[in-house]
Amino acid sequence: MHEGAPADPIIGELSEGEVLARIAARTGRAAATQVGPGDDAAVIGTPSGTVVATTDTLVHGPDFRLAWSSGYDLGWKAAAVNLADVAAMGARPTALLVALAMPNDTRISFVEALADGLREACEALAPGCAVVGGDLTVSPTLTLAVTALGDLEGRTAVLRSGAQPGDVVAVAGELGVAARGLAVLFDRFRAADGAPVPVDGALLAPGDHASLGGQLRPSPPIGLGPMAAVAGAHAMMDVSDGLGLDARRMADASKVTIDLDPSALGDDPVLAIEGGEDHALLATFAGDALPPGFRVIGRVVERGEAPVLVDGRPYAGPGGWDPYRDWDSVSG
Amino acid sequence: MHEGAPADPIIGELSEGEVLARIAARTGRAAATQVGPGDDAAVIGTPSGTVVATTDTLVHGPDFRLAWSSGYDLGWKAAAVNLADVAAMGARPTALLVALAMPNDTRISFVEALADGLREACEALAPGCAVVGGDLTVSPTLTLAVTALGDLEGRTAVLRSGAQPGDVVAVAGELGVAARGLAVLFDRFRAADGAPVPVDGALLAPGDHASLGGQLRPSPPIGLGPMAAVAGAHAMMDVSDGLGLDARRMADASKVTIDLDPSALGDDPVLAIEGGEDHALLATFAGDALPPGFRVIGRVVERGEAPVLVDGRPYAGPGGWDPYRDWDSVSG
Repeated sequence: MHEGAPADPIIGELSEGEVLARIAARTGRAAATQVGPGDDAAVIGTPSGTVVATTDTLVHGPDFRLAWSSGYDLGWKAAAVNLADVAAMGARPTALLVALAMPNDTRISFVEALADGLREACEALAPGCAVVGGDLTVSPTLTLAVTALGDLEGRTAVLRSGAQPGDVVAVAGELGVAARGLAVLFDRFRAADGAPVPVDGALLAPGDHASLGGQLRPSPPIGLGPMAAVAGAHAMMDVSDGLGLDARRMADASKVTIDLDPSALGDDPVLAIEGGEDHALLATFAGDALPPGFRVIGRVVERGEAPVLVDGRPYAGPGGWDPYRDWDSVSG
Repeated sequence: MHEGAPADPIIGELSEGEVLARIAARTGRAAATQVGPGDDAAVIGTPSGTVVATTDTLVHGPDFRLAWSSGYDLGWKAAAVNLADVAAMGARPTALLVALAMPNDTRISFVEALADGLREACEALAPGCAVVGGDLTVSPTLTLAVTALGDLEGRTAVLRSGAQPGDVVAVAGELGVAARGLAVLFDRFRAADGAPVPVDGALLAPGDHASLGGQLRPSPPIGLGPMAAVAGAHAMMDVSDGLGLDARRMADASKVTIDLDPSALGDDPVLAIEGGEDHALLATFAGDALPPGFRVIGRVVERGEAPVLVDGRPYAGPGGWDPYRDWDSVSG
């Protein structure tokens, strides 16, 4: 950098190679890496003879607001939601590929924080997993498309279609916390015109910190996915769009009915059923096989008229409503 | 669809499930698929114990113009550029994951054509490979982030760092054709204000069709990547940013100098050296090992002051200039 250059340049002032080097210094190294970043592609060990692969995207506007999410938050969340999809197959995450499209005026410090968030989410949630490759593009819309790979370690993948009548329905991880955090943001941290404004800690009640953390930096129980598979889970998926909607998806795929017990869903069962983005693991087990970390929230019965029951009554509530998507502004 | 519904709805009028169903009907099935689309993740067989993985993104504005590229073109190109990265490791492509972010007013016919382009590029360039999973998101900017997986079939990956003095430098595929196609678009199919306008066939000379095809629907020699690896290629990469720039990357990674022979680069050696986006395969071989499909374009010598020579003289020309990126409009 020449004398007088800004300490925190925008990416439009740097070459692609310089931006890549700043990111590569922060992404760590995946344990299964045979060839890492810098060639045409990465090479990852898959000793068990299969690879699990999934992709999920965060788009500025529909999926996050820069007034509320830091670069670190975004990196963390993009990793976490993809790791959860791998874990929900019963697999151990091994590697991430990150396609990052961003405006030319993005600060390099933002990109570095994003790389830190990706790395630290992997370290915390899926040790051994790290970014092994990616792509940088200029775009008017900040977009983070992450692909996660995983290893079944010789196990059979646990699908959402395997639930059987007589199974217990169990969950590992939070339900409703991320939605509560989103409500805090929408209710308290918007200007009169609806635009998001940064979070003011003075306006937070003690419990709000955990709720915001659940929304901005979710920590799904990734390690429990493989444990559920080892314990013989019949079906599993991650709860991304709300328990009510995702239980319906599992029930439809398995041709069963899932009967949820609201007394097992905490202080606010409606929020637990309707709130999305926690990425808890929803699984069904033969009654005697529940692994540590999972709690029973219902049971699987023969397919009836309704795919999902709550306390025995058909569930027809909203599922999967996404306030970001239904909000017409994309700024902030 | 209810009576009177539009025959070609925008995706904002359809549910995510409906859009996914329209895509899934068109993506085919990868030969290595163990679990396909519809669960949290796909499962792909990797019998040789490794997987090759790469990701590359096309963004509306910097990477393509909708006045020039159809949905089919975009699907084809997004597949082709990723398949080329897998092939450049010496691997056979097995699966694609597609993260598609698009405006709510995108026509479903456009999405279907994009899915057709993805499938037909795989069928034509990498039989057995297909889309195994993906993600749909709403975005103000049409963005197509593709991850490709591949199988080395027991071979060692061919890196860009393996070139050795004494090797011949060889290429398979076109050089300069895509750049010529881009020049046709920029020179002849823009309005007075610079905005792109649709291609008028009456303004095309006979050779222009091939040039436009090379730019909009490139057909890199994917199958020759594994063949080069079998033949013992020392180094290989795909030429995405222009031969001059990519040869420099190979030379730097291998700590050698690459001496290109302009008389082997066709009618327009400058275009062949400077033009990007053909995704030809650039490789080096011991002199007696050149496989079919590759032609010699130079040789590897001990590292000198310049990483790349052209006819023995240091090459310092532009490499990797991207007219889309340097163009300030993002419309059209």
